[in-house]
Amino acid sequence: MILNAPLPDLLLEPLVRAALHEDLGQNGDITTRAVIPPEARYSARLNAREAGIASGMQIARIAFHLVDPSLQVEILIPDGSPCAPGDLLMTIEGPAAAILSGERVALNFAGRLSGIASLTAGFVAETKGTKTRITCTRKTTPGLRMVEKQAVIHGGGSNHRFGLSDAILIKDNHIAAAGGVRAVLEAAKASVSHMMKVEIEVDTLAQLEQVLQVGGADVVLLDNMSTPDLTRAVEMARGQLVTEASGNMKLNRIAEVSATGVDYISSGALTHSAQTLDLGLDF
Amino acid sequence: MILNAPLPDLLLEPLVRAALHEDLGQNGDITTRAVIPPEARYSARLNAREAGIASGMQIARIAFHLVDPSLQVEILIPDGSPCAPGDLLMTIEGPAAAILSGERVALNFAGRLSGIASLTAGFVAETKGTKTRITCTRKTTPGLRMVEKQAVIHGGGSNHRFGLSDAILIKDNHIAAAGGVRAVLEAAKASVSHMMKVEIEVDTLAQLEQVLQVGGADVVLLDNMSTPDLTRAVEMARGQLVTEASGNMKLNRIAEVSATGVDYISSGALTHSAQTLDLGLDF
Amino acid sequence: MILNAPLPDLLLEPLVRAALHEDLGQNGDITTRAVIPPEARYSARLNAREAGIASGMQIARIAFHLVDPSLQVEILIPDGSPCAPGDLLMTIEGPAAAILSGERVALNFAGRLSGIASLTAGFVAETKGTKTRITCTRKTTPGLRMVEKQAVIHGGGSNHRFGLSDAILIKDNHIAAAGGVRAVLEAAKASVSHMMKVEIEVDTLAQLEQVLQVGGADVVLLDNMSTPDLTRAVEMARGQLVTEASGNMKLNRIAEVSATGVDYISSGALTHSAQTLDLGLDF
Amino acid sequence: MILNAPLPDLLLEPLVRAALHEDLGQNGDITTRAVIPPEARYSARLNAREAGIASGMQIARIAFHLVDPSLQVEILIPDGSPCAPGDLLMTIEGPAAAILSGERVALNFAGRLSGIASLTAGFVAETKGTKTRITCTRKTTPGLRMVEKQAVIHGGGSNHRFGLSDAILIKDNHIAAAGGVRAVLEAAKASVSHMMKVEIEVDTLAQLEQVLQVGGADVVLLDNMSTPDLTRAVEMARGQLVTEASGNMKLNRIAEVSATGVDYISSGALTHSAQTLDLGLDF
Amino acid sequence: MILNAPLPDLLLEPLVRAALHEDLGQNGDITTRAVIPPEARYSARLNAREAGIASGMQIARIAFHLVDPSLQVEILIPDGSPCAPGDLLMTIEGPAAAILSGERVALNFAGRLSGIASLTAGFVAETKGTKTRITCTRKTTPGLRMVEKQAVIHGGGSNHRFGLSDAILIKDNHIAAAGGVRAVLEAAKASVSHMMKVEIEVDTLAQLEQVLQVGGADVVLLDNMSTPDLTRAVEMARGQLVTEASGNMKLNRIAEVSATGVDYISSGALTHSAQTLDLGLDF
Amino acid sequence: MILNAPLPDLLLEPLVRAALHEDLGQNGDITTRAVIPPEARYSARLNAREAGIASGMQIARIAFHLVDPSLQVEILIPDGSPCAPGDLLMTIEGPAAAILSGERVALNFAGRLSGIASLTAGFVAETKGTKTRITCTRKTTPGLRMVEKQAVIHGGGSNHRFGLSDAILIKDNHIAAAGGVRAVLEAAKASVSHMMKVEIEVDTLAQLEQVLQVGGADVVLLDNMSTPDLTRAVEMARGQLVTEASGNMKLNRIAEVSATGVDYISSGALTHSAQTLDLGLDF
Repeated sequence: MILNAPLPDLLLEPLVRAALHEDLGQNGDITTRAVIPPEARYSARLNAREAGIASGMQIARIAFHLVDPSLQVEILIPDGSPCAPGDLLMTIEGPAAAILSGERVALNFAGRLSGIASLTAGFVAETKGTKTRITCTRKTTPGLRMVEKQAVIHGGGSNHRFGLSDAILIKDNHIAAAGGVRAVLEAAKASVSHMMKVEIEVDTLAQLEQVLQVGGADVVLLDNMSTPDLTRAVEMARGQLVTEASGNMKLNRIAEVSATGVDYISSGALTHSAQTLDLGLDF
Repeated sequence: MILNAPLPDLLLEPLVRAALHEDLGQNGDITTRAVIPPEARYSARLNAREAGIASGMQIARIAFHLVDPSLQVEILIPDGSPCAPGDLLMTIEGPAAAILSGERVALNFAGRLSGIASLTAGFVAETKGTKTRITCTRKTTPGLRMVEKQAVIHGGGSNHRFGLSDAILIKDNHIAAAGGVRAVLEAAKASVSHMMKVEIEVDTLAQLEQVLQVGGADVVLLDNMSTPDLTRAVEMARGQLVTEASGNMKLNRIAEVSATGVDYISSGALTHSAQTLDLGLDF
Repeated sequence: MILNAPLPDLLLEPLVRAALHEDLGQNGDITTRAVIPPEARYSARLNAREAGIASGMQIARIAFHLVDPSLQVEILIPDGSPCAPGDLLMTIEGPAAAILSGERVALNFAGRLSGIASLTAGFVAETKGTKTRITCTRKTTPGLRMVEKQAVIHGGGSNHRFGLSDAILIKDNHIAAAGGVRAVLEAAKASVSHMMKVEIEVDTLAQLEQVLQVGGADVVLLDNMSTPDLTRAVEMARGQLVTEASGNMKLNRIAEVSATGVDYISSGALTHSAQTLDLGLDF
Repeated sequence: MILNAPLPDLLLEPLVRAALHEDLGQNGDITTRAVIPPEARYSARLNAREAGIASGMQIARIAFHLVDPSLQVEILIPDGSPCAPGDLLMTIEGPAAAILSGERVALNFAGRLSGIASLTAGFVAETKGTKTRITCTRKTTPGLRMVEKQAVIHGGGSNHRFGLSDAILIKDNHIAAAGGVRAVLEAAKASVSHMMKVEIEVDTLAQLEQVLQVGGADVVLLDNMSTPDLTRAVEMARGQLVTEASGNMKLNRIAEVSATGVDYISSGALTHSAQTLDLGLDF
Repeated sequence: MILNAPLPDLLLEPLVRAALHEDLGQNGDITTRAVIPPEARYSARLNAREAGIASGMQIARIAFHLVDPSLQVEILIPDGSPCAPGDLLMTIEGPAAAILSGERVALNFAGRLSGIASLTAGFVAETKGTKTRITCTRKTTPGLRMVEKQAVIHGGGSNHRFGLSDAILIKDNHIAAAGGVRAVLEAAKASVSHMMKVEIEVDTLAQLEQVLQVGGADVVLLDNMSTPDLTRAVEMARGQLVTEASGNMKLNRIAEVSATGVDYISSGALTHSAQTLDLGLDF
Repeated sequence: MILNAPLPDLLLEPLVRAALHEDLGQNGDITTRAVIPPEARYSARLNAREAGIASGMQIARIAFHLVDPSLQVEILIPDGSPCAPGDLLMTIEGPAAAILSGERVALNFAGRLSGIASLTAGFVAETKGTKTRITCTRKTTPGLRMVEKQAVIHGGGSNHRFGLSDAILIKDNHIAAAGGVRAVLEAAKASVSHMMKVEIEVDTLAQLEQVLQVGGADVVLLDNMSTPDLTRAVEMARGQLVTEASGNMKLNRIAEVSATGVDYISSGALTHSAQTLDLGLDF
């Protein structure tokens, strides 16, 4: 998914504001207030210390500006662009105390989001030469879904639904509670808006067969299938359903799975288990 | 740090409420609303799928109760207790739709926090036989510091300061901007309240020597030192300063570092790079 | 769209709470506080004074309970059910002051939402014997979109997208800015997630032809077309695109338009110009 | 009521901000992000498509500025001024994506509020040649009372109380619960502050007589009276009570009622059943 | 002003909740968590340590219940009732940790509000035998106006307007900017709603004369006048304007001023300079 | 405590914004809106009317800017500096209506905070020639702790803990519930982080003796002791514990108590019973 424009600051500001309040507490940055001369000014550089994909640069800029609107912030490597160790991502100039007070919040966002973008890019690299796309799940950090989903985009991935209300995804428990694949798809078809997609999870080729017969789904989630089953499922679904492979999709299996021709591979690990990208602020 | 009582629900509720709004959006769980019969009831079990330390159980309970106060939730393995694969952590009984609607938020919190608690416990295990304690940093997820810090406690670790306003921590940039160790410690001493600790970061034994001479610090952060230097630093500081080793403290170095007699080892990885503990809701 | 379950109270409460604060201000209901004896109790009946479809009953219940949790509220005609003049919708028993203090907020919500549901039902009635469905737009009251969209469901209608972020809808200005139908659809196809629908607005059959050639859309919005053109458009799109007729769709044109076989008729008037349904609280 | 100055933006911003979050969701305007080139700039014109009174222009300006502070917004027909079909109300220049993203929220506010202002102006026109003033009620949209009350002013009307806490209005149920007109007025007199008005509702001339005897009221609400009774009531109250006629005051009865000499005519329809004024953004 | 019913908890809860978050921070009551056994239970008594008027009892109850809904709270001396040293105001039973964690917030509210109520009662006592009433101003603590105004009521006083929007009060600067008494009153008359009072401040009898001539005011604020001037002003205004004496109205001048027959004496000191009433929680 | 830098506006803005909404309500400053010509401009001066210490100047500036960003505000006597009667603290230039609308909120903050700073300075003056420092408590106004604590600093005092979560303070009830001094200190030692101080309250020298024997505390609060006992306690604690005298520390006892050599004297009266400093806005 290639979205040309960043989100408006309006959408990100509440998140950044809350993070700054969380860190600054009721007494502000007491170290800086106590020891930094008010007239001290810094020219700080946000540098990458390992290779990856930048994400959270817009947020870091917002963080510094919220602490002190007089800070001069310039982004050199924008969200979604690759960085190498030592690369200069952003410069921040102005009162030293403000830079030091905003540093941790800016880094906590940027490190985490760049980690997600970078991990996503690693998955995407494994799909090279196929049409398979990497997509995330709802296994995101509570409160950060908006920005973690953007980080997946920055890493070259695609977004799954944002929450429970923007698409229908029927899982095994829904099927069981509703009385089987036919019943559940009938119920979904009766309710679904014309602007909403319907996805259904299947564990077996037999279930897939049933989904194809009943109709009413746009996408099928092929859960925890072997590679041969995935290959067969893709063939069965061709022209009728978009296919998504899911279930413990580790990096080392992506090339093999994408070779099956599946449309999407989804992985919760992109957001729930990415490691922070090492970034640092140098003065 | 052993804190006998959990936090009051009052403190956790806003976080959980926000996460539920994030996931449920403006149209609720449309899958469940469309396909689950209103009279369907479930008895669900939250199970551990790998070994670790439970954290986020209180939050999961709050999440289910916010979705539907009529749900019966029982915690079997409380926050801070170990779990083995297959262990039953919590039972939830009541309307199926409510359980399904709250499931992801409950799991997102519990998986992440249990991951942090479990990683902490791994670090703590490496300190066995020493008096060294494992402690976290401010490298937490924006918005989740409160609960991530608790997860560190649940894993047997200790908390560092919660934010910029509850203790003074003088880092290299502060020293540089303030004009050296002496100047910075004098400034800190002049400002600090009697209810607040002062920590200062040093990179070399020479700096430590200076800190000891000037006085005014309670804790010294020994940054990126070799093990022999740490050993020497601990000797120098004995009886005068609490010592904290920091800087890329990976799991495989903890035993060696704790053998130096250092009081604390701090690691940002506990919170910024823990992997989710695999938990699942079974029906 | 038939959604079996109501939204969880959790989602509606913030809205109702804000409305109560708006009405009660900083000094509460001073009339009631001044003149109603604290021991006075009422048994109040919410009655319909004209025929229509009930909506906002759940919200009215929440409003009374927020003012005083001891009130006994029973809903007799639930959201989505028809009511005739004189029908008893809800009973509220308990302290008179609390009932009087919550009355206006409960009625403001219920009257407005029942008005929307009733107007929707009027549109739906005109589609009888066809497969055409009535759907709303984003022309909702700022802050009330969630509940106005539910009211459309209660009236037998279907929901369009909830906001700018849950589906792609390409309008004339997008086409112009992006450089034509082909360019805009290519751009959309490149960006769209597999869980998101793409709709494009056309004003002419020629444009529709182009959309069909380029592909990449799921739904076509037929804007301000004559009935013969709509008929032709439906034929052209059959089996390829879901069709939606829009543009000044007044009640007296619905039967004619639905006879064209169009899948959906959308109308902003459902939410932006519905008249309040006359409801009253009797003591 | 002629208020010289608009409300400070401070008071309106939270409302507009909330509406933008409601519409933009967690992923922003995905259509615009996907298809509009970032460098595209528009010069947009907000035009009236029917005659009426402008209201919500200030809010529309705030909306566009919140989406992108770099937009140039100029208001040509300010709140409270009349517009004819085709009149240019406002120009907006700058990034096309920002204009498109803010358009709907701006229009939803402006259309609704202009609708209220215009309907009010229609009522006011009927009072021509009399001293009667048109006033609103508390039958406003939950969450929008502040701006709907301003729209009534823009239309030439006057405001009734803003909520339950800024004036006393004794209705039939209060009279019943308090034990009659005398008891209720005594209770009100004992409680009322010197900065607060007291109004009491009467249904009959006999009740009005009693109110005049007991004293303690500033305003009398003449509820659902025939025109002859209203005429008589106005005479009885002259010099002692401000008079307000209420109860199903439809447009076609306003001239007749204002001819009775009544001071105020109040109508809930001004806010609860106004139709949106047709405004459009042209590029 | 005698208001029979307390405010609904709904209105007070946000204030109390915010105060608890302010005190409990991100780590809760760490002392209690560390040292109080979870099974410890207390029966605590809130006692008055000096004579005064109770206020804030409802708020204290809410505070304890927010910390732990299982606490049993009984109010023995309700808001507005007098207390003597040693009097038992409230009992709280349940988990010791919860009582200790809520104690300070409960006391901070109750001590401050009882202080205001008690100071007000002292002023009221000085008016004995006259019809003069004591009223507050807008010189309240930011954020606490709602509860401080109630405390004035609890002390036997009356409320002035709650804010800038519920009544018109024309001060010297308004008169100057608007071009004199006549111009300002004309402007006010043209704008004022029938549900709103108009007050105007005068410094001299000549100004009062002018106000009486022009009309349009309901109340006159006699600012910083000598007692003889107040006496004369009251005579001049009789039957035409409610009179309010203001300006450095200290306790020892109240008897003298109320003897002039003035209707109201207003004092900012009631809210801005009251001393906390000494209350304590005993275990 | 000397903190060089003021808090970032970011931390203060929510407080000021809430206070402005509290005062401006839903209809703004209706007096100003009705009678002040929109073109009127003022040059206003905030003057001290009595001697004291300025506090709240930063907040007053924020208040005026929130009402109207075009106002020119210049602070002449910054927070923490002394003022004499007649001194010019701040100038505000721009639209008259905006200055009048923000005046009361600015004054309510500045008067209250300057009152606290001034009272603190009075206490500090009494400690002259000793090393004793004056410190506040948690007996602050709910919602204003952040700014009241700053006001104490502005007056030359020092801050105690900000809330229940940033330091451990063991009081008599904790000792009783935990089973005595030894048990409670053992529990605290086991839980406390290395970045947190531990204080314990003692009433007698015998208790102090026990505290010294057990260890684990950093600070001792000497509660309600006679001056001779305080003198003895200071000797006993020397070199081992920081000492804090507390309990009804009135201004006239400060000199005597500070002569005992105690490190800190804490007083709740600084924040809970300070009188507003008389400030006024002149035009």
